Amino acid sequence: MCRFLIYKGRDPILLAHLLTRPEHSIINQSYDSRLRIDTRRPMNGDGFGVGFYTRDTDPELGDGPCVFCATTPAWNNLNLARLAEKTKSSMVFAHVRASTAGVLSETNCHPFTFHSLMFMHNGQVANFHRMKRKFASHMKDEYFLYVQGGTDSEWAFALFLDCLDKLGVNPCKPVGVNGFGHEVIRKAMLLTIQLIKDWSKQCAQDDVDNQEPSLLNFAVTDGHSVIVTRYITSRTEEAASLHFSTGSKFIEYEPGQYKMERRDRRQDVILVASEPLTFERSDWVTVPTNSILTINNQTVLLHPIMDEYYQIDPSVPRSSNFAASRGLVSPIVEPQAYTNVNLPPLEREGRRRLSLTA
Amino acid sequence: MCRFLIYKGRDPILLAHLLTRPEHSIINQSYDSRLRIDTRRPMNGDGFGVGFYTRDTDPELGDGPCVFCATTPAWNNLNLARLAEKTKSSMVFAHVRASTAGVLSETNCHPFTFHSLMFMHNGQVANFHRMKRKFASHMKDEYFLYVQGGTDSEWAFALFLDCLDKLGVNPCKPVGVNGFGHEVIRKAMLLTIQLIKDWSKQCAQDDVDNQEPSLLNFAVTDGHSVIVTRYITSRTEEAASLHFSTGSKFIEYEPGQYKMERRDRRQDVILVASEPLTFERSDWVTVPTNSILTINNQTVLLHPIMDEYYQIDPSVPRSSNFAASRGLVSPIVEPQAYTNVNLPPLEREGRRRLSLTA
Amino acid sequence: MCRFLIYKGRDPILLAHLLTRPEHSIINQSYDSRLRIDTRRPMNGDGFGVGFYTRDTDPELGDGPCVFCATTPAWNNLNLARLAEKTKSSMVFAHVRASTAGVLSETNCHPFTFHSLMFMHNGQVANFHRMKRKFASHMKDEYFLYVQGGTDSEWAFALFLDCLDKLGVNPCKPVGVNGFGHEVIRKAMLLTIQLIKDWSKQCAQDDVDNQEPSLLNFAVTDGHSVIVTRYITSRTEEAASLHFSTGSKFIEYEPGQYKMERRDRRQDVILVASEPLTFERSDWVTVPTNSILTINNQTVLLHPIMDEYYQIDPSVPRSSNFAASRGLVSPIVEPQAYTNVNLPPLEREGRRRLSLTA
Amino acid sequence: MCRFLIYKGRDPILLAHLLTRPEHSIINQSYDSRLRIDTRRPMNGDGFGVGFYTRDTDPELGDGPCVFCATTPAWNNLNLARLAEKTKSSMVFAHVRASTAGVLSETNCHPFTFHSLMFMHNGQVANFHRMKRKFASHMKDEYFLYVQGGTDSEWAFALFLDCLDKLGVNPCKPVGVNGFGHEVIRKAMLLTIQLIKDWSKQCAQDDVDNQEPSLLNFAVTDGHSVIVTRYITSRTEEAASLHFSTGSKFIEYEPGQYKMERRDRRQDVILVASEPLTFERSDWVTVPTNSILTINNQTVLLHPIMDEYYQIDPSVPRSSNFAASRGLVSPIVEPQAYTNVNLPPLEREGRRRLSLTA
Repeated sequence: MCRFLIYKGRDPILLAHLLTRPEHSIINQSYDSRLRIDTRRPMNGDGFGVGFYTRDTDPELGDGPCVFCATTPAWNNLNLARLAEKTKSSMVFAHVRASTAGVLSETNCHPFTFHSLMFMHNGQVANFHRMKRKFASHMKDEYFLYVQGGTDSEWAFALFLDCLDKLGVNPCKPVGVNGFGHEVIRKAMLLTIQLIKDWSKQCAQDDVDNQEPSLLNFAVTDGHSVIVTRYITSRTEEAASLHFSTGSKFIEYEPGQYKMERRDRRQDVILVASEPLTFERSDWVTVPTNSILTINNQTVLLHPIMDEYYQIDPSVPRSSNFAASRGLVSPIVEPQAYTNVNLPPLEREGRRRLSLTA
Repeated sequence: MCRFLIYKGRDPILLAHLLTRPEHSIINQSYDSRLRIDTRRPMNGDGFGVGFYTRDTDPELGDGPCVFCATTPAWNNLNLARLAEKTKSSMVFAHVRASTAGVLSETNCHPFTFHSLMFMHNGQVANFHRMKRKFASHMKDEYFLYVQGGTDSEWAFALFLDCLDKLGVNPCKPVGVNGFGHEVIRKAMLLTIQLIKDWSKQCAQDDVDNQEPSLLNFAVTDGHSVIVTRYITSRTEEAASLHFSTGSKFIEYEPGQYKMERRDRRQDVILVASEPLTFERSDWVTVPTNSILTINNQTVLLHPIMDEYYQIDPSVPRSSNFAASRGLVSPIVEPQAYTNVNLPPLEREGRRRLSLTA
Repeated sequence: MCRFLIYKGRDPILLAHLLTRPEHSIINQSYDSRLRIDTRRPMNGDGFGVGFYTRDTDPELGDGPCVFCATTPAWNNLNLARLAEKTKSSMVFAHVRASTAGVLSETNCHPFTFHSLMFMHNGQVANFHRMKRKFASHMKDEYFLYVQGGTDSEWAFALFLDCLDKLGVNPCKPVGVNGFGHEVIRKAMLLTIQLIKDWSKQCAQDDVDNQEPSLLNFAVTDGHSVIVTRYITSRTEEAASLHFSTGSKFIEYEPGQYKMERRDRRQDVILVASEPLTFERSDWVTVPTNSILTINNQTVLLHPIMDEYYQIDPSVPRSSNFAASRGLVSPIVEPQAYTNVNLPPLEREGRRRLSLTA
Repeated sequence: MCRFLIYKGRDPILLAHLLTRPEHSIINQSYDSRLRIDTRRPMNGDGFGVGFYTRDTDPELGDGPCVFCATTPAWNNLNLARLAEKTKSSMVFAHVRASTAGVLSETNCHPFTFHSLMFMHNGQVANFHRMKRKFASHMKDEYFLYVQGGTDSEWAFALFLDCLDKLGVNPCKPVGVNGFGHEVIRKAMLLTIQLIKDWSKQCAQDDVDNQEPSLLNFAVTDGHSVIVTRYITSRTEEAASLHFSTGSKFIEYEPGQYKMERRDRRQDVILVASEPLTFERSDWVTVPTNSILTINNQTVLLHPIMDEYYQIDPSVPRSSNFAASRGLVSPIVEPQAYTNVNLPPLEREGRRRLSLTA
């Protein structure tokens, strides 16, 4: 059970506006259970990571992202709180995780990086232990050796790198000044999902009792294009939540409360998140199950992933039971609904939120 | 917002039976928000500590307790999980904390120890920053210098040591083979509360707008006697929860489910806890607000703390609003009520509880 | 560059006597560079682990060892210091590591355990990245999936488990009340070395420029027998240091100074260590390069490993250059030599050693 | 025993050029004992901190510095390695510490900050435990309450803030666009030293046997001016080492090897360090014992501190015994002397330095 957040902006944003100041940021969600809409989910207290590109603020700093991660709870990490107040970037990935698989270790923290590429995962590869050998034997040595930890997510990234490679692209080297281009990244992502799906089926044949679907919400970027999937290997269940929001500015209208400003249909700011970051219903669009989202030149594109798990008829409902049992359903909420919870103010807890008041 | 647990037994118990195996242990409560009755409280993910005496299992190991603490969430601490499966003790203090005051640091982890003494606190000294100087100037150098961190709780322990000292007892040296004796420890504890209360009043005079009460649930032991208070500096509010349970054995009747066995009115096992550890209503007795509990020779004694905050008439109700706003109310719960929550099994989360299956 | 220490005694020993109190323990060596004979080696500040069996002190606690490990420097770990003062065992493994390979992570800390088995490694598998696939494809799924981290050492342990399995022994289940028996453990260990050697040669053929030998000092135990190797895949170089000491008692004759007492040729206490723990030359026997040491029933046996790297003629010298370049040479030292360094007392550093004075 | 480093440049520098890439940086010194000239000192493995101002790279980010600190060894901190490669600043403080006093805790990590001010200390206040009450009772509440940890250094900073305040300056608010100005900061620093000196003398009268001097190398900045002292409360002993270097550019002439380029007597780059960062003798000037260094507008000023510990006659030698016993003497070294140590290349250790090769 994890949460992730992506920011892609025409201008750099202070990380604090994404991570620590919004009352409903993935950091503060993970700390304050009262703010969580579904309180039956276990907490995201097992670690977090944030990766950001520095190219726009200082081109000399190179193509690769800077990653800061920790295995202690995000809400109590002073280094994160301080860095967030002093760092700006126009391309940010953030991830909070609960260790469903893999020991708690910095090697298991998302986002994973490889040269200019950055990757994260929200969900889980079902029965991964049975497929681990297939991952290992399929890929080239350099990606096999890339894996340092023990998670399905890190192996999935290694597989993605191998897919890129097999499409004729060297993952160490972006082709041009604009990275690899969104087409080939999307192609590699779809290939990655295809392979995991195939291996899942082979394993499922051996074990008819365990037919649990895989939840494959992946996000990848080269610092230019962003590709995000919302996918499940099931025809009847919903995938883990995924939403996006676009606008001209992401603004704090009162302390801790943010909204997306929309002027002239501009998409200067694009947010993609497993859980809405604001309480304005109109701010967010839900990505349909089994589709792939692309951000290219500050524009969002959505494509369906049309395979055997695709439902052509949108009126056929999917059940959210499976994703909910993993704590991976986060609907968009009306401010009223939220207000009805009638929270006592956070301050009454005798406990401050993470934002620093310098 | 914290939780604590005390075990005093005629026989040593495996720590796992207190900390990691019970589904409703303070460790597992802190991990799984679904198991928490009041889901509006923030999580206890900021650190924990366990202290235990080894005298009964090996007298050669000395009078002092062994303490293991960490600033990472208890539910993910492999060292704790392993030690709990391999350590027995007949006198155990355990504490899970959320840092309401004081930076996250091992120096701020309960239980605090001083030679053979061990101390923990559930609650908070209201407006502590205004009283800190009074604490500092009141006590002898050795206790002033004892303080390493920045919490009201550690200062309260230093004050308790100073009170013991002023009662003519050297806190470094238990008088006899049975420790200091419960009378003098109780006296020092009451003196500690008296001083904090007096200082609070002096500070309150300066600031009529901030009249918040202090929540002073303290526990102290010398490895023989145990003294625990349930106290609030208010005549109309309830103190933080405190319950106890006694019986002949604390048994696991099915995996993760425990109950207190009671044969022949024996009190071979005594548990004191801020939150009930089992779901049998009849297992637990609630300690009244503003009273002091003593464990001596496997017997529990309760005395009222009869000062200006005492309510002689038990029919005059106290409000639980203040304690609840701090997340410090944990009623005893009927198993039915709990069952009604209708939890999906933990295993469906794809996540194991902390107990190791060697 | 690592250090390890093994204790096998007829009686349990307080862990502090092995880990924290001796001035020359592997913990204190790692802290105080002045105590280190070869100061050109980098520090062991990257993590440590200690594993011990509880069977002798409390048979109810099961067959498996208890392991405590950390990624912070051992010399500053308060939990270790406190546990060492309160824990006794008759069978102890301890390991301090510098991360030559594998990220700093608890999953990479020695000793590794599997049910009742415990394993550690001092040295490195040369060019491991080229052999990783061979490890992976050779072993059964349960051992392949056992690996959580990224080190050659953990893979070597998984390979050892697979070797045991292929010898017809289930590593999950000791056959009798005395464990697996030293013969089959030794056989599995020799097989493990044989396989690594073979794979090394195959890899070396591909890369004639990189013919670095592997340093394979392994230690394994089932809580009863102990098998330790001192081995290098070279005919001309020395392996990493290995020494042992036997006697009737390991005693502290003055604070921080230990020696082995020897009465009646009894071997009630057996120590095996990568670095001598005392400064009595006569306390220690050096294990010859490319031999295997067995502890069975408080008796030490030494066998040569007679393969292509064995030197039958003991007068043919090996060079210690390679092992020294890895910081793995620790000769036995005369107390005079040590005294000549003419150390200022540790206390003048304003810094205490780790031993707690309760 | 600590090390510190200060960078003040006309242009921002990549932190990696100060912290992780130079073979002789304070990070790499702390890791590799072979690079340390005096190998008898204990290691700096107990934590580190780096603080830097962002005003020059992005004025919107506010006046205060950003601090990153950790209690794990600097040489193995991946977050530090990554941030250092992606962060530039023209005003940097860095500190590596060995915990001579105060528990290992992030609250005890230097540099300490207060609004726009940043402070660090190399040395120790002798017999601090006897003076702690004097510190506490002398200062105003806001600085008394500022102290979170337990170190003499943090108390010294609180005292400095109180001194500033008593000089009529509000430490929360720089007066102008150029901070507080170097005069008042220097005055407050001298006052701080005066007070500690006075209290030391009062305490020393009570204890004639313990007349150890205090080592007071302090550094403070408001992001504009920098004040650094090299001071000892002794007439016959040397203070802890302090050196500075100025030039037009700090350049890497070969991997890991740096030197100060000097063109046209410009002081575009100013480094102050407890230990020389390069092996060019001519790069470094030693600050005389008991003097105070000021950086103002890229110019270095040196003033003697002329009190009872001042030696007017420079031919009267001071002994370096005391500072050396604390591991605080680091002479400037000729490259030849260094070369004579004849090191095997670091790479032969099978261990990389911290610099990342992205």
